[in-house]
Amino acid sequence: MKIARFSHDNRIAFGIVDDDDLVVLTGDPMFAGYDTTGERVPIADATLLAPSIPRSKVVGVGKNYRDHATEMGTAVPEEPLLFLKPNTSVSGPGDYIVLPKQSQRVEFEGELAIVIGTITKNVTEEKAMEHVFGFTIANDVTARDLQKSDGQWTRAKGFDSFCPIGPIVDTEFDFPSAEIVTRVNGVVKQQAPLTDMVHDVETIIAYASSVFTLLPGDIILTGTPAGVGPIENGDTVEVEITGLGILTNPVVRPRG
Amino acid sequence: MKIARFSHDNRIAFGIVDDDDLVVLTGDPMFAGYDTTGERVPIADATLLAPSIPRSKVVGVGKNYRDHATEMGTAVPEEPLLFLKPNTSVSGPGDYIVLPKQSQRVEFEGELAIVIGTITKNVTEEKAMEHVFGFTIANDVTARDLQKSDGQWTRAKGFDSFCPIGPIVDTEFDFPSAEIVTRVNGVVKQQAPLTDMVHDVETIIAYASSVFTLLPGDIILTGTPAGVGPIENGDTVEVEITGLGILTNPVVRPRG
Repeated sequence: MKIARFSHDNRIAFGIVDDDDLVVLTGDPMFAGYDTTGERVPIADATLLAPSIPRSKVVGVGKNYRDHATEMGTAVPEEPLLFLKPNTSVSGPGDYIVLPKQSQRVEFEGELAIVIGTITKNVTEEKAMEHVFGFTIANDVTARDLQKSDGQWTRAKGFDSFCPIGPIVDTEFDFPSAEIVTRVNGVVKQQAPLTDMVHDVETIIAYASSVFTLLPGDIILTGTPAGVGPIENGDTVEVEITGLGILTNPVVRPRG
Repeated sequence: MKIARFSHDNRIAFGIVDDDDLVVLTGDPMFAGYDTTGERVPIADATLLAPSIPRSKVVGVGKNYRDHATEMGTAVPEEPLLFLKPNTSVSGPGDYIVLPKQSQRVEFEGELAIVIGTITKNVTEEKAMEHVFGFTIANDVTARDLQKSDGQWTRAKGFDSFCPIGPIVDTEFDFPSAEIVTRVNGVVKQQAPLTDMVHDVETIIAYASSVFTLLPGDIILTGTPAGVGPIENGDTVEVEITGLGILTNPVVRPRG
C-alpha cells in the first residue's frame, strides 16, 4: 500500500493512495491500522505532507555508494558511517528548502529512506525488515562548505528544511529493481540503481539498531549516489525512485 | 524553583523540591504551570527520573573548555562545534550507563545542561535566556575509541544510556558562581568553575538556534572541562554542580 499524510479542509489525516484519490484512514496506520472513514479525497485537492513524523531522529549513512565516495575523495567505510539529522530538519513534498545565510554552497543528495515501524533495538539482519513500516524518498540536503569546515556534519546536515521526505510511504516497495534519479530544474544530476548501495538496507538497520533504539516513525537515509551538486535560490529539485513517485522541493534563499 | 520528575506508587509526576519533600504538580510545569495537587511525597520514597524529555534532540558543544581542548590535542573552535545526541540516549539519575560491546574505552564527561522551555529559532544572545526553562547536570558519555575511528561523533556519543541527566532542573540557577566536579568511585577527576567555558550559555543558545529549531524539553550540553577518563563495569560516576545537586550513575558492562 502507498500511504500519504495530507491536509485538506483544515484537518490533517492519513490516506491510502487509490488511483487519483486518497482513501481516508481513521488514524496513523503505523499505530492505528488501516480502518477507513469511508471518505475519499482527490489527491489534486489535498496538500501532501511529510508522510512520517520521526519521534526521535533521522539516521544517515555516509558514503554508501562507491561512486559518491570516490567523488568526495574518500574510500567507502568498511562499516556504515552514521550521522544524525534532527527531526526538526524534516519537511514534506513541495516545501521550500531554505538556504541558510551561514552557507554559500548547499547541495542536494537524493536518497532512499527507510521508515521504521516498531521499536527496534539490536535486531539481526535477518529480522530487520520486520521492523520496517515502509520506504519513501528523501533529500539529504547538505551545506557542503560547513561540512568541510566543521568536520562534524551536524550543522551542515541539520538545518531546518534540510530533510524533505515523501511524497508517500510504500509498505510493499520492491527496491532491488528500483532506480534513483535526481533532477535540478529538469536536468538529471544523479542516476543509479539502488543495488549500487555498499551496505544494504538490512545491514544498515541492524547496524543502527546496535547503537540506538529506533522509534516508530524514525527515518534511516541509505546514502546518495554520485552526482551531488549545488542548489540555488529559485531552483527546483526532484528526487524520483521507481515505484515511490517524485519528491519535489523548490529552493529559496531568504532576503536580508 | 527546583523541579524533579519522579515515579512513586506506580505513577509518574513532576514535583517542586521543598526540603526533604516533593510538592506534587498537576502536570509538566513546562507546559502546565505550577498548580499543585496538595500532595507531598518524601524524596526518599520517590525514584527520580530524567527531569526533562527532549521532544527532538540533545545538542552538544565540543571542546568548550580550553584545558579539555588541550588534553584532546586540539585548539578551541572559534565558533561552537555542534554535535547531536538522540533523545533515545537520555536516561535519569541512578540509571545504569551501559557499556556497549563495540567499545573498549568509554569515558565520562561531566557537563552543565541547558533545558529549553519554548520553541526557539534564531534568538539573539540578549534574548536567549528567555527561552531557557532551567538548568540541570548531564554526563556526555562518549566511546572514545569509536569517536576517533569513526571521525563523526554520532555513534560514539549516541548509544542508549549515554546521556544521563538530572537529578533536578533548577529554574533559578545562578551559574556564574558555580563549579562542576566529576568523581569516579569518589575520586575527583574533573573540577572547574563554569566560567571557564569558552562560549557562554547565551552564545551557545543563539548559535544552536541559528541552525535548528529547538523544542521545549530539548537539552543543550555546554562542554566538559579537562580530566576526562575511562569508566568500567562496576564504577559509579558522580557529576556535581553547585546548587544543582549530584547526578550519580552506576556503570555496567552486560555479559555475553
